[in-house]
Amino acid sequence: MLEQLFKPKSIAVVGASSDSLKVGNIILRNITSSFSGKVYPVNNKTASIDGLTAYKSLIDIKESVDLVVIVVPRDAVPGVMKDAATIKAGAAIIITAGFKETDQHGAELEDQIMAIARESGIRVLGPNTIGLITPDVNATFAFADVKKGKAALVAQSGGLGVYMLNWAQESNVGISYFISLGNQADVDETDAFQFLSTDVETRAIFSYVEGVSSGQKFLTTLPDVIRRKPIIFLKGGMGKTGAAAVKTHTGSVAGSMDIFRAAVRTVGGIFVDNIEDMLNLAKIVLSSEPVSSDILIITNSGGHGVLTTDAIDKEGLNEIELPERVKHDLLSVMPEQSTPRNPIDLSGDANYDRYNKALGIIKDLDCTKIVIVQSLPMVSCSDVAKAMVNYRGKGVIGVTMGLDQNAASKLLDSVSIPAFIFPEDAVRSIKYMVERPNPVKKIRTAEPINQARELVKGKNYIKDFEAMQLMEIYGIRTPAYAIAENAKEAVEKSTAVGYPLVMKISPDTPVHKTDVKGVIMNVEKDTVESSFTELNYPRTIMQAQISGAEIFVGGIKDPVFGPAIVVGIGGIYMEVIKSLSYGICPVSEDEAYQMMKDSKVLGMLTSRNRDYDINGTVRAISKLSNMLIDLDIKEMDINPLIVNEKGAFAVDVRIVL
Amino acid sequence: MLEQLFKPKSIAVVGASSDSLKVGNIILRNITSSFSGKVYPVNNKTASIDGLTAYKSLIDIKESVDLVVIVVPRDAVPGVMKDAATIKAGAAIIITAGFKETDQHGAELEDQIMAIARESGIRVLGPNTIGLITPDVNATFAFADVKKGKAALVAQSGGLGVYMLNWAQESNVGISYFISLGNQADVDETDAFQFLSTDVETRAIFSYVEGVSSGQKFLTTLPDVIRRKPIIFLKGGMGKTGAAAVKTHTGSVAGSMDIFRAAVRTVGGIFVDNIEDMLNLAKIVLSSEPVSSDILIITNSGGHGVLTTDAIDKEGLNEIELPERVKHDLLSVMPEQSTPRNPIDLSGDANYDRYNKALGIIKDLDCTKIVIVQSLPMVSCSDVAKAMVNYRGKGVIGVTMGLDQNAASKLLDSVSIPAFIFPEDAVRSIKYMVERPNPVKKIRTAEPINQARELVKGKNYIKDFEAMQLMEIYGIRTPAYAIAENAKEAVEKSTAVGYPLVMKISPDTPVHKTDVKGVIMNVEKDTVESSFTELNYPRTIMQAQISGAEIFVGGIKDPVFGPAIVVGIGGIYMEVIKSLSYGICPVSEDEAYQMMKDSKVLGMLTSRNRDYDINGTVRAISKLSNMLIDLDIKEMDINPLIVNEKGAFAVDVRIVL
Repeated sequence: MLEQLFKPKSIAVVGASSDSLKVGNIILRNITSSFSGKVYPVNNKTASIDGLTAYKSLIDIKESVDLVVIVVPRDAVPGVMKDAATIKAGAAIIITAGFKETDQHGAELEDQIMAIARESGIRVLGPNTIGLITPDVNATFAFADVKKGKAALVAQSGGLGVYMLNWAQESNVGISYFISLGNQADVDETDAFQFLSTDVETRAIFSYVEGVSSGQKFLTTLPDVIRRKPIIFLKGGMGKTGAAAVKTHTGSVAGSMDIFRAAVRTVGGIFVDNIEDMLNLAKIVLSSEPVSSDILIITNSGGHGVLTTDAIDKEGLNEIELPERVKHDLLSVMPEQSTPRNPIDLSGDANYDRYNKALGIIKDLDCTKIVIVQSLPMVSCSDVAKAMVNYRGKGVIGVTMGLDQNAASKLLDSVSIPAFIFPEDAVRSIKYMVERPNPVKKIRTAEPINQARELVKGKNYIKDFEAMQLMEIYGIRTPAYAIAENAKEAVEKSTAVGYPLVMKISPDTPVHKTDVKGVIMNVEKDTVESSFTELNYPRTIMQAQISGAEIFVGGIKDPVFGPAIVVGIGGIYMEVIKSLSYGICPVSEDEAYQMMKDSKVLGMLTSRNRDYDINGTVRAISKLSNMLIDLDIKEMDINPLIVNEKGAFAVDVRIVL
Repeated sequence: MLEQLFKPKSIAVVGASSDSLKVGNIILRNITSSFSGKVYPVNNKTASIDGLTAYKSLIDIKESVDLVVIVVPRDAVPGVMKDAATIKAGAAIIITAGFKETDQHGAELEDQIMAIARESGIRVLGPNTIGLITPDVNATFAFADVKKGKAALVAQSGGLGVYMLNWAQESNVGISYFISLGNQADVDETDAFQFLSTDVETRAIFSYVEGVSSGQKFLTTLPDVIRRKPIIFLKGGMGKTGAAAVKTHTGSVAGSMDIFRAAVRTVGGIFVDNIEDMLNLAKIVLSSEPVSSDILIITNSGGHGVLTTDAIDKEGLNEIELPERVKHDLLSVMPEQSTPRNPIDLSGDANYDRYNKALGIIKDLDCTKIVIVQSLPMVSCSDVAKAMVNYRGKGVIGVTMGLDQNAASKLLDSVSIPAFIFPEDAVRSIKYMVERPNPVKKIRTAEPINQARELVKGKNYIKDFEAMQLMEIYGIRTPAYAIAENAKEAVEKSTAVGYPLVMKISPDTPVHKTDVKGVIMNVEKDTVESSFTELNYPRTIMQAQISGAEIFVGGIKDPVFGPAIVVGIGGIYMEVIKSLSYGICPVSEDEAYQMMKDSKVLGMLTSRNRDYDINGTVRAISKLSNMLIDLDIKEMDINPLIVNEKGAFAVDVRIVL
C-alpha cells in the first residue's frame, strides 16, 4: 500500500552493510538517524551492523515490516521480493540499478519483480532510485542533513533529485517529501503527485520529468491534484540529442516536447524552461507575498531600474503609473531635484530611513513592489531588507545586490519574502506565477456522428472529396467544390462552383498535389476544359478560389497523450517560421483562442485592420479537435485553412486513419 | 590630458569632509588608503582632515596637481573648475550630480563647466559619476576594498558600476580599471575603451552603456580597439518603458536598440542580453581555457547530462561523437553495463579517481569538455575540481552542483578554469564566445553616381518610376515596367511589359497603394484598358507580374549611427512575425548574407528545395546599403523585393530624402 511506502512504521534494509562508503551503509545510517520506528538491517554474512542486530533474511525478522529497502545486486532482487511477499511487507524501495534502463536481462529481472509485486500487492518505488525522504525518515543514500519545510520534490533522475535536495538545503527552502522515481516500474509521477496533493506538510510540488508513463492517467488525475497544490514541471529531453540521452537514462521514451508542454498547460501545471527558472520560481511559490502583473520598482540605482523595466517589457508585464497623491507624498522623501515616477529612484545616498518611508507611502497600492538595493557605503542590502520586513504581505519582492546580498536574502527568506540577486530573475518568476494556466479536465469520450463513422469505416486513407464531406459533417466550412471524371463533366459542374476556380487532381491516396504539378489556379469558365486536359488525371476536384490568411491546422495521435491538435501560420512561411501552438484534444473554444494567440495566428488575422473571421476560426479548431477523438485519426492536416471576412474554410485536407 | 586622468601623480579633493558618512570623506579615505602620490584635501572651513593639511582653495596648494576630484554642491563647481584652470590641473572628476540629467539650470551649469574645460584643456570625467579606480588609486565613493585583476569595467550608471565592482570582488574576478562615466560631458565610452585597449593590465572590457554619444566615433574607433581587447556590451533601455527611464537617468537619448545591436556586431563587440549573461561570460573571457562549439559532457548524473544536451541543442552548438578508440579506453573506467557515449555518464558512484581517469582519456580531443559533478556521499565537487586542475588548458569547463559548489568554484577560479553552477549558463557563455563577430571597419564615404544625384536633387520625395530608375542605376533589378497617362498609352505600352501585369496608380508623393485600392493584379492584354479606367488616376505604372518569395528591405538614417539597413520576411506576415535583421551601412556581401540568415530570409529562399537567387539577393542588399549612404536617404523601403529563380526584383519602392 502507498501508505506503507510514504508513512512506514517499520523498515527493513536488505543489503545493509558495515562499510561506510557503501550505499548499503549510507542508507542504513540515514534511516536510523532520522526514523523513530523499528529498523531491521538484513545481511546474511554478519550478526550486527552499526550496533543493530542484523538478520540473515527478511523471513528471520518475525515482526511486521511495512517497508523493505533493497540494495542487493540485481540478480538477487527477485528473491528478496519473494521474501517480502512471504512476510506480507506493504512496500519496497529498490535502490539497485541495472534493470530495464540497462539491458535485456535487466528488463527481464524487472518483469519478474513486478510479477511478484502485483501478486502480493507490494507497492514498489524504483528500481534504480536514490530513495525517498518523508517528514519522518530519510531512506536515501543522498546527504543525511535535510532541512524540513514545505516543498515536495519528485524526480525521475537521481542526480537531479540530489541537486534539488542540495538546493533546498542551501537556499533555506525546506522540503516535505523527496521522491526519486527511478524506473517507475510501479509508482509513477502521477501516483506521487496524487499522494502529495493531500499531504498537509506540502505547499507546492517541484518535479523533474523525463517521460510520462500514462498520458491518460496524467490528464485525468492532475487537474484535481493541481487545484490543491501547484506543480512545477522541469522536463529533460527537449532537444534532439537530449531525447537520445533520456532513452538510455531511464528507459522511458520521451514524448514529443511540444505535446508534453500542452499537456502540462491543460492540467494547470507550470512548465519551466530550465533548473534556474524552477529554483527562482520556488521563491515566489513558497512565499506568502501576493504577486500581480502590475509592477512598481523602488531602487537606489537608476541603471538597475532601467534593466528591470526592460525585463518587465520583455516579459509582457505592466509597469504601473503612480497616482498623483502618491507622487506628492514621495516628494517629501526623495532627494531634491528628483521626480517621483516608476521606477522610484531613491538615489545612491538612500538609507534605511528613506526606503522605509517610501515603502510606507506605496505599501497599499495594488501591485507587486520590486525593491532593489545596490549596497553602497550609505546603505547595505541588510538595511533595506529590514525595511522590507516592515511591509511583508504587501506584495514586496527583494532584489539585493552587493557584498552582503546573501545575508539580506536570508533575512527576507526567514519571513517568506522572495529575494533575488538579478532583477530579470524576479520579473521572470513573477511572469510564471501570474500566467500559470487553469487546470482543465478533458472529457475525451468518442461520440462519432453516424454519417462520419460510415464514411471512414475500414479505410486507411480517405479521398479529398470524402475529407470535404467529413468537414461538412463536423460543421467546418469548405469552399464550394465539385468532382469531375471527364472534361465534359468538368465544364458542366464548374458553373455551380463559380469562377475563378482551382482545379486539382483527386487521387485515391494522399499526395502533395503541388509537388506533382497537380494544381491549376485561376481557372475561368473558358479554360476549364483545357485545364482538365492539362492535368491529365482520371479524377479532378474543382474548388472555388478564395483568398485570405492561410492557416495550418494539424492533428496527430501522440503515443503518450493521444489525440493532439496543432495550429500555426500556414503558407510558404510555415516551415521557416514554425510559429505553432499545440493543444490536447478536445480543445475548448477558449483554448483554441489561446492557441491562435500563442501561434501568432490571431495577430495575422487582425493585422492591417483586417476583419477576418476569428470566431469562425476558433470554432473550426474546436470542432476539428472533437473529430480527432471521435474518428481515431492517426494524422491529418488542413493546409491551408483560409480565413477571410466571410469565414474559415478548409481548402486542402489530408487524413490518415 | 587623459594621462593625468587615468594615471595621476597628485590628486586634490575639493569638498573633502571630516564627516565619515559624507561622500567627501569616503572618497578622500579611499584615495589616501590606495594612492602613493600626493593628496591635497580642499575645504574652506577647516585646517586639517583625517590628519592631512586642508587647503582653503586649489589656488592655495602651490604645487602641481594632476587630477582634481570635485564633490562640492553643483552651483560651486564652475568656480572650482576656474581654479583648476588657474593652477593648470590636467584632469577633473566631477562627482557632483544635478546637471543636465536633472533640469535646465543643471544643463546650463554643465555648459559653463565644459566651456572652462575646453579652454583650459582639462579633461573631465562626469559630472554625476561614482568616480574612477585605476591600478594605483581608488577615487570613488564605492567600497574601498577592491581586488586587483584583469577586468576593466566601464559604466554609464553608477549603481550598475558599483554592482559590477561588487561582483568582481565576490567572484574572484579582479579589476584593472573601473570607470564610471556619468553624464559624459567630455570623456565618453569610446575614449574609455580606447585608453583601456592599450593598457597592459587589462584583458577584457565589460561595459554597461545606455547611449552612445557619437555613433561615427564609435564605428571608426572600436574595430581597432576590439582587435586588441574584447569588449562586452550590456545595454540598458531596451524596452519602451526602459528607454523612458534612461532619459531621466543620464540625460542621453537611447538610440534604437536594434541598430545599437547592429553597431556592436559591426565593431566586433559581444552584446549580452542581461547582467547575468555578462557575469557568466566573464568567466570564459578571463580564463585561459580554449573553447570551441564542439562539446563533450562528462557527468555523474544522467539527468544533468540530459539538461546540458538540451541546452547545447537550443543554442545551436554541437555535441561531438566519441571516436571508437576513446570509447574502448573509457570502458575500463566506466561502471559495468554502461555504454561510453557523449554525455559520458560516470554514474552516481563516480569518485575522484574515475573522473581523473576519464579526463585523462579524453583530454586531447579537440573540443570543449564540460565536466559536471553533482556532489554525493561518494564524491564532492572539490574532489572533481582537483581532477580538473590536472587538465587545465585542455578546454575544461566546470559545472559544480552541491553543498561544496562554492569551494570547488574558488579552486577552479584560482587556476583560471571557468566554473558554473548551472549547465545552461556554461553552454550559453560558450555560445557568446564562439560566435563573437569579427570587427569590421566601415568606409562610409558617399560617392553618389552623377545620374543618381541628378535624379534626387532638391527633392523630398521621388515618384515610383524615378525610384525604379534609381534601382537600375545602382544595379538592383526591377520587373519590366511602363508609365501610362491615358488608356490608349496603357494599351500600347503594355505589350513591352508582358502579361499578366500589375497596374498601379502612380502618385507624386508616396502612399500605401493597396490601402487606397490603387492596385489591380492579373491584368491581361484584353483588360488593360478597363483596368486603367477602373483606377481612374492621372498616371499609372504597369509592371510585369512576377512571383516568388516576398522580402522586405528598408533603410533608415539613425540619429546616432547614421544610415542603417533592415532585411526581413515581407508580405502579409511582416508585421506579425517581425523577423528582421539590422545592419550598419555599408553592408558587405558577407554581412548581407548573415543578415539574411538571422532574419530567416535565407531559410525562406531555400525551403522546399527552392532554387531562388540567393546571390542576387545578397548583392541587392549590399548595393542598396551603398545607395543609402550616397544619397543621404532619410527613410525608404522596398516592399516587396520579390526573389525567384531568376533574381531579386524590387517591386515597390518608397523613398523619403
